[in-house]
Amino acid sequence: MKTTRNTKTTKSSPLPAAHTDLGKPEVVWTRRHLLGLEELSGEELEHIFRTAESFQEISTRSIKKVPALRGRVVVNLFFEDSTRTRMSFTLAAQRLSADVLDFSAGKSSVTKGETLRDTVRNIEAMGVDTFIIRHSAAGAPHYITRCTDCNVINAGDGQHEHPTQGLIDIFTIRERKGRIAGLKVVIVGDIAHSRVARSNFWGLKRLGAEVTLVGPTTLVPRAFEKMGAKTSYDLDAALKDADVVNMLRIQHERISSQVFPSREEYVRLFGLTQERLRGTKPDLLIMHPGPINRGVELSSEVADGPNSSILRQVSNGLAIRMAVLFLLNQASGKN
Amino acid sequence: MKTTRNTKTTKSSPLPAAHTDLGKPEVVWTRRHLLGLEELSGEELEHIFRTAESFQEISTRSIKKVPALRGRVVVNLFFEDSTRTRMSFTLAAQRLSADVLDFSAGKSSVTKGETLRDTVRNIEAMGVDTFIIRHSAAGAPHYITRCTDCNVINAGDGQHEHPTQGLIDIFTIRERKGRIAGLKVVIVGDIAHSRVARSNFWGLKRLGAEVTLVGPTTLVPRAFEKMGAKTSYDLDAALKDADVVNMLRIQHERISSQVFPSREEYVRLFGLTQERLRGTKPDLLIMHPGPINRGVELSSEVADGPNSSILRQVSNGLAIRMAVLFLLNQASGKN
Amino acid sequence: MKTTRNTKTTKSSPLPAAHTDLGKPEVVWTRRHLLGLEELSGEELEHIFRTAESFQEISTRSIKKVPALRGRVVVNLFFEDSTRTRMSFTLAAQRLSADVLDFSAGKSSVTKGETLRDTVRNIEAMGVDTFIIRHSAAGAPHYITRCTDCNVINAGDGQHEHPTQGLIDIFTIRERKGRIAGLKVVIVGDIAHSRVARSNFWGLKRLGAEVTLVGPTTLVPRAFEKMGAKTSYDLDAALKDADVVNMLRIQHERISSQVFPSREEYVRLFGLTQERLRGTKPDLLIMHPGPINRGVELSSEVADGPNSSILRQVSNGLAIRMAVLFLLNQASGKN
Repeated sequence: MKTTRNTKTTKSSPLPAAHTDLGKPEVVWTRRHLLGLEELSGEELEHIFRTAESFQEISTRSIKKVPALRGRVVVNLFFEDSTRTRMSFTLAAQRLSADVLDFSAGKSSVTKGETLRDTVRNIEAMGVDTFIIRHSAAGAPHYITRCTDCNVINAGDGQHEHPTQGLIDIFTIRERKGRIAGLKVVIVGDIAHSRVARSNFWGLKRLGAEVTLVGPTTLVPRAFEKMGAKTSYDLDAALKDADVVNMLRIQHERISSQVFPSREEYVRLFGLTQERLRGTKPDLLIMHPGPINRGVELSSEVADGPNSSILRQVSNGLAIRMAVLFLLNQASGKN
Repeated sequence: MKTTRNTKTTKSSPLPAAHTDLGKPEVVWTRRHLLGLEELSGEELEHIFRTAESFQEISTRSIKKVPALRGRVVVNLFFEDSTRTRMSFTLAAQRLSADVLDFSAGKSSVTKGETLRDTVRNIEAMGVDTFIIRHSAAGAPHYITRCTDCNVINAGDGQHEHPTQGLIDIFTIRERKGRIAGLKVVIVGDIAHSRVARSNFWGLKRLGAEVTLVGPTTLVPRAFEKMGAKTSYDLDAALKDADVVNMLRIQHERISSQVFPSREEYVRLFGLTQERLRGTKPDLLIMHPGPINRGVELSSEVADGPNSSILRQVSNGLAIRMAVLFLLNQASGKN
Repeated sequence: MKTTRNTKTTKSSPLPAAHTDLGKPEVVWTRRHLLGLEELSGEELEHIFRTAESFQEISTRSIKKVPALRGRVVVNLFFEDSTRTRMSFTLAAQRLSADVLDFSAGKSSVTKGETLRDTVRNIEAMGVDTFIIRHSAAGAPHYITRCTDCNVINAGDGQHEHPTQGLIDIFTIRERKGRIAGLKVVIVGDIAHSRVARSNFWGLKRLGAEVTLVGPTTLVPRAFEKMGAKTSYDLDAALKDADVVNMLRIQHERISSQVFPSREEYVRLFGLTQERLRGTKPDLLIMHPGPINRGVELSSEVADGPNSSILRQVSNGLAIRMAVLFLLNQASGKN
């Protein structure tokens, strides 16, 4: 891999001087696992972003492949279904020339009563390198790091974190706005149950953004204020001077629950429409981690409008996941 | 890829002079999608066949791989199950060194209420090159071409077309008979609901064959006559001077429907048995797109007999699908 | 592939002189199928083991790939689910650079009424090289060898054999003990229904081990005695001078059946606990083909203890399956 610094970033760098003068980037990254953004330093976040920049170009080539992880094996260990996230990780791994294997929990020896520890250690014994884990239990990926010497990537654990989605979102903001520090970022939706909100919050806070969490009173815990976020139940007020708004996906199963307003009520209070955008900054960046419910979180006009970065987030997902796979494997000292 | 013309074809070419003197084959193919055979010219059909000929040999090698599409990504987007068609496309893509990703609609964000357009655009944003689409709605692949810049291959849309199966069948006739023009081809079965019949009909007609559609009165629409086909309800009469007979698969769900005769009645009237073959040409070519219902469309004796090209159709399927994948990707101007 | 002999083996070779002095190893292996261990000679077993030794090292590299089967296609034709065995074969094939295709019977044309013969011949016609078959009917893989020219590997057929698991177990004993001949091997569990027991028995017997089959009276057929095994219903007596004990997995569905004792009763009589190990040889090798039911076949203490080779069996599974895939493909004369 070329480690030349992205010149655009270097020239008009929006980053603190400390970040642009790292000197020896290879010492920045020593982690073998990516479990959450809460524990990452600003330098580590920046290192991922710069690595992702160097991978961005590969996805635009006709030959979308580099041999960086040739002969490595990446295992998708998804205990919750997620076609899209699995596809993104699979494509990222293939683009680095790794072999990818899906382990779908439903059909597996897990249903034969095997423990998670035994499942992981058995797959490890087959000679694999990286586990990508999605699990309904917060902390499952952390537990797995204690069972295995392989790299572990958290692809969503309960309501805890979804760090690659957080990285994708922050990387897209950084790309569009040229910086993170000082930006006003509004995250809207079911904050209480959202691992995407948590990962965004930790990363944005670390890099100096001001984060406001917005949603129904039942779904925006005040506990986030102690961690440094603002909270609000009034989207229009929060959007007034916002630079970025990230509209979280509303889970269908949530809509029918007690803590949730009716669908119509939610759209009226928290749906992003062209009308609602009138009072906002003209360059307000509009994000959504996908898949979107058109007419719920955003109107189609907004989703497909010029301020939307929804598809760019998906594209950046490849670069971010390639960067993470690359850095973790490199840190294992086998590169 | 070598673009030398297949010498066998050139020498004893059964094709009109215009086809054998194309001069610059690279200008013949400009399409980025394969949606149906109805819209293809004779030159285009011939160009696919010649390209397929050059790929045929690869499947017989021990190293069944050429680097033509290395680093390209092919996505199977199957909204209807079809193990066999999916395997054939997957093997064809792998043989061209492409990466292949399955998107199974059942488990996906489609079930989370995402629109087809959003599904396609999101996968496209991950940096893929070709969509292979099977869908129960006629026209779904056409719609998708308007959502994406990727290549689109129709792998069966409702009762509209299944163009690669049509190409396989015509290519196999061409291989066995040395020509298409002037041949008498009989297609037997549930014509009304068959996308395979439609694709065969359009391609055969374009290349100058005489097509007779045979089946129960309820399942052979007279509308085909206006398009240039003959129709008949008498298989023995139709087979009398036929050069080729293509026995369509009878869907089990159809047999129990009102418009269908009993299974015994169907076999008696339209099943191909050794006895029925007595009055036919000794070199009658017997085809079936598979999977066959032994004892229904054909007796085992006929299916496994010397005139049957059933397994050859399967083999040719690889060459045709490699050719189509190659040509569409080439037309995208990224080769 | 390098055919240099593993030096460790050469130096302190535990094998009969005939085996260490084969001279021309290439004449030893001529089989195109692996259906069971019953039919393999001692020379053939040894040849697989030596080939596996040469592949063992590959799984420890960071680039876990050799080009031995590049461009070959391996098809997993699993009519019974088995995530773990399928993963192991898939990784082994990928490590040899083969392409791998899964054919899951549930979703396929099998359910459309196609015969097994037609399914196999159709897939073969697509240009594949090796079928890996798991089927609930004993003899299904044998039948398939009569339908196809491809290599066939039995990955478990009814209660007949599971030859690669037998090879893995015997290879692991050979690795730990330095020999097979003269060893006392105890196999414990539901012998009557176990294809793993049968494959182990045939291979161990051929190489000169003394095999004792232990389990509930209803599940240890006396018929094995005629084939040269000892049988016993007393685990403690059998373990007294044993060198190896292989604890078979108890199927959950079996536990609720009439012929099976209660779970508690089974654990008391046949579960391997630290306490039960007291009277045994200190270097007793403890094996299990996985996945284990902790607290049933073995206590966690025993499963994770120093005498356990459970994870080593999994690792050796890759080397054995690579060796089998390599040898069968080589015997097809296409290498």
